[in-house]
Amino acid sequence: MLRVGYPAKLDPSFLRVMPSGIELIPLPDDLDHEVEVDVWIPDALSTRAIRLWPRLHCVRLVLSMMAGTEWIPGTVGPHVTICNAHGAHNISTAEWTVSVTLAMLKHFPLFLDIQRSGSWRRRKEASAEYVSLTGDQRPLHPPVMLEELTGRKVLLVGYGSIGKEIERMLAPFKVDLTRVARSTRAEPIVHSVAELDNLLPAAEIIILILPLTEASRGLVGPAQFARMRAGALLVNAARGPIVQTDALVEALNSGRIRAALDVTDPEPLPEDHPLWRCPNLLITPHVAASSPEFARRSLQVAADELRRYMNGETLHNAVQLAV
Amino acid sequence: MLRVGYPAKLDPSFLRVMPSGIELIPLPDDLDHEVEVDVWIPDALSTRAIRLWPRLHCVRLVLSMMAGTEWIPGTVGPHVTICNAHGAHNISTAEWTVSVTLAMLKHFPLFLDIQRSGSWRRRKEASAEYVSLTGDQRPLHPPVMLEELTGRKVLLVGYGSIGKEIERMLAPFKVDLTRVARSTRAEPIVHSVAELDNLLPAAEIIILILPLTEASRGLVGPAQFARMRAGALLVNAARGPIVQTDALVEALNSGRIRAALDVTDPEPLPEDHPLWRCPNLLITPHVAASSPEFARRSLQVAADELRRYMNGETLHNAVQLAV
Repeated sequence: MLRVGYPAKLDPSFLRVMPSGIELIPLPDDLDHEVEVDVWIPDALSTRAIRLWPRLHCVRLVLSMMAGTEWIPGTVGPHVTICNAHGAHNISTAEWTVSVTLAMLKHFPLFLDIQRSGSWRRRKEASAEYVSLTGDQRPLHPPVMLEELTGRKVLLVGYGSIGKEIERMLAPFKVDLTRVARSTRAEPIVHSVAELDNLLPAAEIIILILPLTEASRGLVGPAQFARMRAGALLVNAARGPIVQTDALVEALNSGRIRAALDVTDPEPLPEDHPLWRCPNLLITPHVAASSPEFARRSLQVAADELRRYMNGETLHNAVQLAV
Repeated sequence: MLRVGYPAKLDPSFLRVMPSGIELIPLPDDLDHEVEVDVWIPDALSTRAIRLWPRLHCVRLVLSMMAGTEWIPGTVGPHVTICNAHGAHNISTAEWTVSVTLAMLKHFPLFLDIQRSGSWRRRKEASAEYVSLTGDQRPLHPPVMLEELTGRKVLLVGYGSIGKEIERMLAPFKVDLTRVARSTRAEPIVHSVAELDNLLPAAEIIILILPLTEASRGLVGPAQFARMRAGALLVNAARGPIVQTDALVEALNSGRIRAALDVTDPEPLPEDHPLWRCPNLLITPHVAASSPEFARRSLQVAADELRRYMNGETLHNAVQLAV
C-alpha cells in the first residue's frame, strides 16, 4: 500500500479524487515524531514544508501543489522524483496578472488614496501622475485620468501554461503581444530570452511568468530597467529573485517606471524594506493563486499524476526524476 | 457656412476629422460675450457646459462628447436636436468595468492598505475579509486570499453598445451572464428590467450600464439590496442616481455587499459624505472614460454625425430630435 502524506489542514473532501489502493496519512504542521511516507504532498507554504521534511522517511515522490518548485530539489536531494501542479494555477495566476495590469493602468492605487482622503477634487492628481509617468505632453482635453490596455505593446516573458492563459485573457484587449521564452518557436513566434534586451525598449507592459532557474535569476537588473521606456509597467507573477530588488527600488524611485508584484526578494518582505514605500507600485503578498479553487485544482492534478506513477506510466509534470 | 462651437481647450488636431464647409468657433470657458453657433459641442464637464449655455444663440444641434446626455434636454429645451457620442466610450468604460470587478474580487483595496502599512503578515486579513463577506465556511487550506472572476454569475443591467463591449471583455472569464435591458430580446436572451428583482438573488456581480431616465432613477434601492446575496458586488458604470445613495451606504455598512462606483449621487461627492468611508468599496471620481483616446474617439463620432446632418441623412445617435 503506497503511503501518501498530506498537510493535515487540507479539507479531506478534496482528497476523494485520489486513486484507490493508497494509505492517506495526514501530516500536522507540528509533527513531533518521524513518519514513513512514499509520496509527499508538501504544504503550499515552503517554509512550513521545509520544517517538516526532516521528520519524513522513505519519500520517493513529491507531488507539489504549486507551479514553482524551486525550493524542493535542494531540500529533498536528487533521489526523489518531483512533480509540480502543472496547470492548476493557470486561471488564478493569469487573472491576477490581468487584474494588476488593469489596476495600474487605471491608477487605482492613487484613486484609493484619493478615496481615503474624501476629496473628489484630488482627481486632478491622476492627470498629473499620467503626464509625469509617461511624458505625454499633448494638450489633451479633457485631462487624462487613466489609461487603456487595449492596443498596448505587451512583452510576455515566459510562455508555459500560465503564459498561454495570460495571452488568452488579454485577447479582448487586442494587445500587440511579443512572446519570450527559453525555447524559441515559429508558430506562434516565441523569441529567445537572449533577445530580451532588444525587445524591452518597445514594451509598454512587461509580464514575467517564467520559472526561477539559475538562468532566470537576476534576469531583470539595472541594464534592463535602463532600456525600459518611460511609464513602462513591470508585472512579476513569477518569482521574486528573477528581478534584482535594488535595481527595482532605484527604477521605481526615479519615477520612470511602475510595477506590480506578487513576489519579492526577500520574501516575506521585511517591515522596514524600502520596496514597501516605492511610488507607482502595487504589492500583493504572494497570494495570486490563493483562490477558493486552489486545493481542488491542485489535488486533481496531483491525483492524476499519482495514478500515472502507480501504473508505471510516463509522468506529465516531473520537474526532477529520481536518480 | 455652419458655425460649430467647441471647447477652446480641445487639441485642434482632433478637429481635423470635421467635414469641410463649416466654421469652427473656439469657446473659452470664461466666454464673456454672446456668440452665435448653429452646432454646439459642449465641454465634457456638464457644470462648465451649463455655465456657458446662456451665452450661446442659434444652437440647433448639440453634439455631445459623452454617452450620457441627461443634463442636456433640461438645459437647451425641446427645439434643439441632441446627439450623443454613441460608441466613443465603449472601450474605456468597459475596461473600467472589468478592471474594478477584478480589483474588488482580488481584494486590492485591502492589499493596498497592507502595502501602505508595510506588513506582509497582515495578508491573513484578506482571508478574514473573504470569509466575512461571502460566508464561505469551508475549511479551505491554503486560506483564500482572493477570488476569481472565472465562472461567476454576472447580471448585466443595460445592453447598449457599452454593455455589449463589457460582455465581449468578460468572454475569456467564461462568466454565467444574464442580461437585462429596457427592451427584451430573444437572441441573445435579454430580460426586462421588470424582472430585475427576481434575477438579483442569484447574481454574484451586478453591473449597471443603462442610461439615466425617469424609469431608471432610483432603480436600485433598499428592496434590491435586500435581495442581493452575501458578498455580491455592485458595479455602477452608469449614473449615480440610478442607485439610491442612502440605501447603498446602509448596505455597505452592514458588511453584506461590496461596490465599485465611477459615479455617485450627489456628484461631486462632498468631502464629508458618509459614502467615502464605507467598507468594501472602490470609488473613482467619474473618470472611467477619461483615457488618452477620449477626444479623438468622441470627435470622430461627432464629425460623422455632423456630416450626416449636413447631408440631410438620418442621424445615428440622436437622443432628442428638435420639435
